[in-house]
Amino acid sequence: MDKIKIGIIGAGYIGGVHAQVLARDERVHLSAVYDVMDERAQCLSRSSGAIVSRSAEELIEKCDAVYITTPNTKHTELAITTTKAGKHVFCEKPMATNLADAQKVLDAAEASNAVFQVGHNRRFAPVYATLKQMISEEATPHSAHVKMNRGELINPEWVGDPQITGGFLYETTIHMFDMMRFLFGEVAQLTALGSTHEYPETDDFSVLLGFKSGLHATLCSSADASWLFPFERVEVFCHHRTIATREMEAIISSEGMEGKQVTISLHQLSKEEKWGYLQEDVAFIDSILNKAPAIVTALDGYKSVEIVDACYRAVSTGERIQFR
Amino acid sequence: MDKIKIGIIGAGYIGGVHAQVLARDERVHLSAVYDVMDERAQCLSRSSGAIVSRSAEELIEKCDAVYITTPNTKHTELAITTTKAGKHVFCEKPMATNLADAQKVLDAAEASNAVFQVGHNRRFAPVYATLKQMISEEATPHSAHVKMNRGELINPEWVGDPQITGGFLYETTIHMFDMMRFLFGEVAQLTALGSTHEYPETDDFSVLLGFKSGLHATLCSSADASWLFPFERVEVFCHHRTIATREMEAIISSEGMEGKQVTISLHQLSKEEKWGYLQEDVAFIDSILNKAPAIVTALDGYKSVEIVDACYRAVSTGERIQFR
Amino acid sequence: MDKIKIGIIGAGYIGGVHAQVLARDERVHLSAVYDVMDERAQCLSRSSGAIVSRSAEELIEKCDAVYITTPNTKHTELAITTTKAGKHVFCEKPMATNLADAQKVLDAAEASNAVFQVGHNRRFAPVYATLKQMISEEATPHSAHVKMNRGELINPEWVGDPQITGGFLYETTIHMFDMMRFLFGEVAQLTALGSTHEYPETDDFSVLLGFKSGLHATLCSSADASWLFPFERVEVFCHHRTIATREMEAIISSEGMEGKQVTISLHQLSKEEKWGYLQEDVAFIDSILNKAPAIVTALDGYKSVEIVDACYRAVSTGERIQFR
Amino acid sequence: MDKIKIGIIGAGYIGGVHAQVLARDERVHLSAVYDVMDERAQCLSRSSGAIVSRSAEELIEKCDAVYITTPNTKHTELAITTTKAGKHVFCEKPMATNLADAQKVLDAAEASNAVFQVGHNRRFAPVYATLKQMISEEATPHSAHVKMNRGELINPEWVGDPQITGGFLYETTIHMFDMMRFLFGEVAQLTALGSTHEYPETDDFSVLLGFKSGLHATLCSSADASWLFPFERVEVFCHHRTIATREMEAIISSEGMEGKQVTISLHQLSKEEKWGYLQEDVAFIDSILNKAPAIVTALDGYKSVEIVDACYRAVSTGERIQFR
Repeated sequence: MDKIKIGIIGAGYIGGVHAQVLARDERVHLSAVYDVMDERAQCLSRSSGAIVSRSAEELIEKCDAVYITTPNTKHTELAITTTKAGKHVFCEKPMATNLADAQKVLDAAEASNAVFQVGHNRRFAPVYATLKQMISEEATPHSAHVKMNRGELINPEWVGDPQITGGFLYETTIHMFDMMRFLFGEVAQLTALGSTHEYPETDDFSVLLGFKSGLHATLCSSADASWLFPFERVEVFCHHRTIATREMEAIISSEGMEGKQVTISLHQLSKEEKWGYLQEDVAFIDSILNKAPAIVTALDGYKSVEIVDACYRAVSTGERIQFR
Repeated sequence: MDKIKIGIIGAGYIGGVHAQVLARDERVHLSAVYDVMDERAQCLSRSSGAIVSRSAEELIEKCDAVYITTPNTKHTELAITTTKAGKHVFCEKPMATNLADAQKVLDAAEASNAVFQVGHNRRFAPVYATLKQMISEEATPHSAHVKMNRGELINPEWVGDPQITGGFLYETTIHMFDMMRFLFGEVAQLTALGSTHEYPETDDFSVLLGFKSGLHATLCSSADASWLFPFERVEVFCHHRTIATREMEAIISSEGMEGKQVTISLHQLSKEEKWGYLQEDVAFIDSILNKAPAIVTALDGYKSVEIVDACYRAVSTGERIQFR
Repeated sequence: MDKIKIGIIGAGYIGGVHAQVLARDERVHLSAVYDVMDERAQCLSRSSGAIVSRSAEELIEKCDAVYITTPNTKHTELAITTTKAGKHVFCEKPMATNLADAQKVLDAAEASNAVFQVGHNRRFAPVYATLKQMISEEATPHSAHVKMNRGELINPEWVGDPQITGGFLYETTIHMFDMMRFLFGEVAQLTALGSTHEYPETDDFSVLLGFKSGLHATLCSSADASWLFPFERVEVFCHHRTIATREMEAIISSEGMEGKQVTISLHQLSKEEKWGYLQEDVAFIDSILNKAPAIVTALDGYKSVEIVDACYRAVSTGERIQFR
Repeated sequence: MDKIKIGIIGAGYIGGVHAQVLARDERVHLSAVYDVMDERAQCLSRSSGAIVSRSAEELIEKCDAVYITTPNTKHTELAITTTKAGKHVFCEKPMATNLADAQKVLDAAEASNAVFQVGHNRRFAPVYATLKQMISEEATPHSAHVKMNRGELINPEWVGDPQITGGFLYETTIHMFDMMRFLFGEVAQLTALGSTHEYPETDDFSVLLGFKSGLHATLCSSADASWLFPFERVEVFCHHRTIATREMEAIISSEGMEGKQVTISLHQLSKEEKWGYLQEDVAFIDSILNKAPAIVTALDGYKSVEIVDACYRAVSTGERIQFR
């Protein structure tokens, strides 16, 4: 069988990460790269062998599958165009930066026969895959305490610009909302408080979530803090058991009534594996080859946008948001 | 001057801790001990030199100051009796296990000229005293993420009995409510979700708090988890700064936009100092000698009961509780 | 049966620790305490109920068993006197501060029918007891990397005075030599380098040890460093397995070729239990009641002095010391 | 100026790491790659754009500078050939796997006008660069305790084959010997014990080192252990100060007589920066462009081989090795 021809639209950091993973996958040919800044495209071309396209349209035309790795607010339009062209799409998160756009992408994806995968990489990261397995097979979680902070919204410069990110929660925190759905199921209700400090948008959130399963959780996410490791941590409380993650580095399970704990350290893995980038790209290619649905679907992408949207509404109205 | 004659009512673990601290303070004489279980009183008498009283009344009569270190639901009555007898009172937390009782204790304390101190030891623990100093002098906090778990409510047996503790939040979590008032000021509003798992009461809480200062916070507190250290942790987010505590053992401050952090480890201190027991007892004796108000007043005790009470109401009604 | 009458000679920190443990043991009566500084004896008397003796001789006379908890260089004479008086002896480490004296104590102890126990508490500390069990039952160790530092020799003042301690290695590091014998068996050879920096004696040591079992080990012990936790750490390398201790707080075992590790945290124990003081005192009383030999004998005490002595010789001569 | 044409001989893991770094350096053109296994060369070619050469000779001929990233025992011959061809050489460590070969490489490098750099990357890693700065500017070290373990010699398969690695110490531990020279100066004497367990060579070492400066150090390095993080750790003892590294992840400095410590976490850096690969490649290109000597010279490469050789001799003869 011929190799799958892949194009990458958006030659920034995350585009480069996917390019490196795909360059090592013998089932694909990294055919084309496009970026509005030609210099960036040239640079990725040099280190990956992909040819620089003159436009997104040209790239879509010549490829079988397209990675959309542009800044957030550009995802929706490209995702719809590519999907409507019948091509397979790997769309970085967030799929959209408002609910109406998310619905449009979802509609387009559902109307297509091609694969549509959203880049919620955490599901593939070994810490979270292991956590999911533990709470599925060994322990029923009853509550969770979740932190996802950034140190700053300064580097790179655009992460502090809501015109580009769609808002802080769309840039970073959305990962945790998808993660919580993955681990705990659908959200039933949400209350939130937020405040504005350093950046021209609400940049600090405290959130209380209730899930349909009865599990409840607290989440904090501040954009104005510091890089105190771990930036991202999930603590899950189960019967006589606590399970905690330390970013993508380790998962610690403490069971029983004494102080015994088991730590699985992922220290030896490459960053691509620790963060699940390798696994999500392999899964995407698998889905294409097996004509199977994506593991992270457009519906998943929609749902995570829905939670972000609810958070912003809860902060501005002071109301408890109920989910259908 | 004569030594202050001190009596201890309740010869359990925490009574023994105070006895050890007081035995080393030359300003006091540990005169009497009483416990409903005579054997326990005898044991504390042996290791402290205090004489066993035949009743609480006898003990109150013969002492200048009384430590009330019985189980929670016995605090109110003893606190009121002792205060009305004109004696100085060190009342372990919680001062009461419902709002009406808390009001009665507050009224009695305010009507007395003697010192009335509530055993919210965290304020004296070096981790929290240092944290308070940092956020007062160097950094303005904008949000906090707080965890206070127990591993179980099995050892000792009575901690799982709400008839004795007044409810899980009164036993353990109340410390964090007082601590948050100490650090962040008065609570303005509170929403909470709770659930019941292993024990005959709501034993798992997720709480969202708004403070009058504008600071917002999330708190989790589960009785059914495991002893994964730290059981108690406060993370405070400030401008380009994160400050975190690890139980009573260490405080970590990470400042700036790089990964630099300063850790103050309290590892070398004795448990009595790390947990603030030594300092709160010294402060109590200081207040008596200086005829000064207690550092942790009956009003503080009332306020922490008020937050616990609001938490229980928020869980049962689903409403957002507003504080005056 | 009558309670065992116990006396304590030396009312400093460690005397107080044993007094607290013994006060809770119903099999004994804490009868007497003596210290060359009367004030210190009075203070321990107040918090333990023991009567102050006017001399060591008076104390030895009236007790069945004596704890020798004076500064190091006073141990030998008191240990010999008490043993020759036919009394049970708990002698704090080091039993002596030179080899000749150690031999005299050993001879006296072996000539007596009473129990003679040396205060090498580490053997009873759960971290080391667990480590011993692991390498006995599950894993054969082939090498070890051991650290035991002090932050300073300033507090208390006398720890920096070799006239009182017998030398830095006798004060602190001797614990690790006994521990290594406990874990790895007899030492076969030893090479060492040392240097002098802050204190009027060799205050920094690097040691290479070969054991009769074939195991080899490195040890460092500096008196001029800082209180960077853990001060004391043993790392043992076995087939596809590493076991590490963190002071008396935790033991971590990592097995297999992945990053999995099991941590047993002793965080919940009291200091007396974590450090093995409770257990060594119980064992001493057990030995007296059961007319059984001590678990840590005068011969063990001698052997640890022998290793310290070899270390000092190795540093001063530059030679490899062979043990018989 | 024309770009420097660079070739890579040896397309394994470390060759790929350098290729990625060099692909992003605009001053160079990654021209050629060669590997005895053509498939590996093709794979690196795909992800880097370099052309596959048919032989090492062809590659050397067409390039200005050559990276020698083959297995250890192939370094010497290629290093000499390339140097004699007048080309700049970046030779991965170890430069040779015996002293005679190291001398030959040193002679060839010293006879050449081109740059010759040895791949002792640790010197460029921020943890060690920071440690070096601290002990140069702020604190005089008096001893060190060093650990460098591998979990196993199984993955990849060849690391357990001394025919390929030259021996375990040449593969991994040699980094620490170079590091110690970098930090502490020249070695004066060395004693070592070793043993053989899982692999067909001495696979576990305990080493005692004396430096010309008077500093002394202990080092352990076991091939048969487990992946207990940190695998690599340096602890340096200075006056009232301890400085410790945690692999390439963090450096902790604890100063003074209290428990205060400052941690610089490198968590946010890419692996290429954390491990110093990026910086050593930049430095190599800098040296070429500035006609400046390499920062890590052939003499440094020789000296680290000399320490490894001394270690093996010390273990087999039982003698203390004196360095000139």
